[in-house]
Amino acid sequence: MKIAVIGLGSVGRGVLETLAGKNIGLSVTGIADSKSGYIDPSGIDIKKVLMQKKKTGRCGDAGVTAMDVVREADYDILVEVSPTNATDGEPALSYMKTAIKRKKHVVTSNKGPIALAYKELKALAKKKGVALRHEATVAGAVPVFHTVEQGLAGNDIRAVFGVLNGTCNYILTRMAEEGLTYEQALLEAREMGYAEADPTYDVKGIDAAIKLVILANTIWGNGVTLDDVDRTGIDRLTPEAIRLAEEGDCTIRLIAEADKSSGLLRVSPRIIRKNHPLVVEGSLNAISIETDLAKEITLIGKGAGSIETASAIIGDLLFIAERYGRRP
Amino acid sequence: MKIAVIGLGSVGRGVLETLAGKNIGLSVTGIADSKSGYIDPSGIDIKKVLMQKKKTGRCGDAGVTAMDVVREADYDILVEVSPTNATDGEPALSYMKTAIKRKKHVVTSNKGPIALAYKELKALAKKKGVALRHEATVAGAVPVFHTVEQGLAGNDIRAVFGVLNGTCNYILTRMAEEGLTYEQALLEAREMGYAEADPTYDVKGIDAAIKLVILANTIWGNGVTLDDVDRTGIDRLTPEAIRLAEEGDCTIRLIAEADKSSGLLRVSPRIIRKNHPLVVEGSLNAISIETDLAKEITLIGKGAGSIETASAIIGDLLFIAERYGRRP
Repeated sequence: MKIAVIGLGSVGRGVLETLAGKNIGLSVTGIADSKSGYIDPSGIDIKKVLMQKKKTGRCGDAGVTAMDVVREADYDILVEVSPTNATDGEPALSYMKTAIKRKKHVVTSNKGPIALAYKELKALAKKKGVALRHEATVAGAVPVFHTVEQGLAGNDIRAVFGVLNGTCNYILTRMAEEGLTYEQALLEAREMGYAEADPTYDVKGIDAAIKLVILANTIWGNGVTLDDVDRTGIDRLTPEAIRLAEEGDCTIRLIAEADKSSGLLRVSPRIIRKNHPLVVEGSLNAISIETDLAKEITLIGKGAGSIETASAIIGDLLFIAERYGRRP
Repeated sequence: MKIAVIGLGSVGRGVLETLAGKNIGLSVTGIADSKSGYIDPSGIDIKKVLMQKKKTGRCGDAGVTAMDVVREADYDILVEVSPTNATDGEPALSYMKTAIKRKKHVVTSNKGPIALAYKELKALAKKKGVALRHEATVAGAVPVFHTVEQGLAGNDIRAVFGVLNGTCNYILTRMAEEGLTYEQALLEAREMGYAEADPTYDVKGIDAAIKLVILANTIWGNGVTLDDVDRTGIDRLTPEAIRLAEEGDCTIRLIAEADKSSGLLRVSPRIIRKNHPLVVEGSLNAISIETDLAKEITLIGKGAGSIETASAIIGDLLFIAERYGRRP
């Protein structure tokens, strides 16, 4: 099958590097970054494009836009990995809709459009007979949607509990391990590259809440939005609160939780027993899925990283190739 | 699709109870236990059969054998969940071969035949164009093979590390928590129903080694056997060894490990940091999968139980229904 890749940030580069290094039967016929685009129906030399991007900051021709690639390139699957926009999902949302209307499958790591418009996109994809997959939007390399859809097929998913933000988890781990204040741990997280210059999005629980909305909408199709999430961040936590929890063999984690029957959607710092599978260290992510048959299944892994997130994208691409195309 | 169920122990009953309670589009046309069999091409009333089994100890007619059901019933998928035999895999192995030769898919929780004859069975299934799935053979409800095949598709699996025996894990957890001796913890495990009257199979690491062989053969197709596993049990562990590990923020777990490049296959008590995701408590199972793209993904869940194991069987049945049949 043929793919077009929109976005050449960390995830896009990870996907292309993986495709260049492995022979998994997918050829790239379109690539775009924010400033340029490149279309070649006969298959693009990925290594050459990555080199050019590194040298010039552009992957292609400044006269070709991302929307040109979405509209005109000859591909089966659009890989939409451009920077996310949690306000209106654009321009990624338009790219996805345009591709689906062209009867192209879509694979994305882009949280904004999926959190805002999953129901609409899914309905459109169904109507056009194509797949919309977004494994990479939640918990990076952890294949949570594959697990819910295939591994736990036949199960009734009753609730999910997640440690979905690596920045917060790093800060909380360091506060507990070293008795650091929130401010000290945040500073360290910045120095380590785990926190942005403006950490609001992470430490206020917004990022975790967006992922929770995606989980709930994907699992239960209930059309919830960010406003439905009861949200508390970690920025007012004191070292004393953590010390008290640790004295009782517990610790504090920012837990995102969704419950099917009560409709609860909450992101908040929670006291949790240290030996619970959800208690992971550092920047790891973890998700516990509560079901009627399997009971509680927990998945742990890297929630970010270029190649780690590419793993989720590649899993989705191969899923589509298996279901809709020839086996690669 | 139509299924036939061979074996009405804990797993078989779990599968039938689940099918009776959920409408997932599968009808049962054959059932057998060790003493009787029942064939009805128009679909068996599951609740009635379960009631009869409870009352009389038989699910059907004493004149109908399990092999009769395998040979003669009209089904698409054979669910082989009869008691396991790790020496020659029989009679389950013959049931499976017979079904595959009839071009029927096979789903099983039966470790013996899969550990002994996976390569042969897989080749036969390929030749006949049917599926052979065995998610329930390793770690009960934990969908490890679905994760390897779908969620981590495109990844190179480099190594697996597992806590695969709930009995050993329960004993080690209790030795660490309460300072019990091995003998005391074993006695408690028996009283709790976590250990058999003869615990050899579990505490000597044989059960974990069989699961490790299944993992290695499924992931790498390397045709290894139980004799290739370097195996040490937990029956000589002292409370002192565990206390020393705990003093260094570590603990001891029976770890099954397989490494692709070195070919290492080992089951042994290992000192492991308490905050490692593999360190689970009580009778839980855990598997860490090391890959090139996703890096380390850990799955945790219940390794046994009637309905929990049925979850893995149902997942395999729905996978086959999705790939080979109409969507249920």
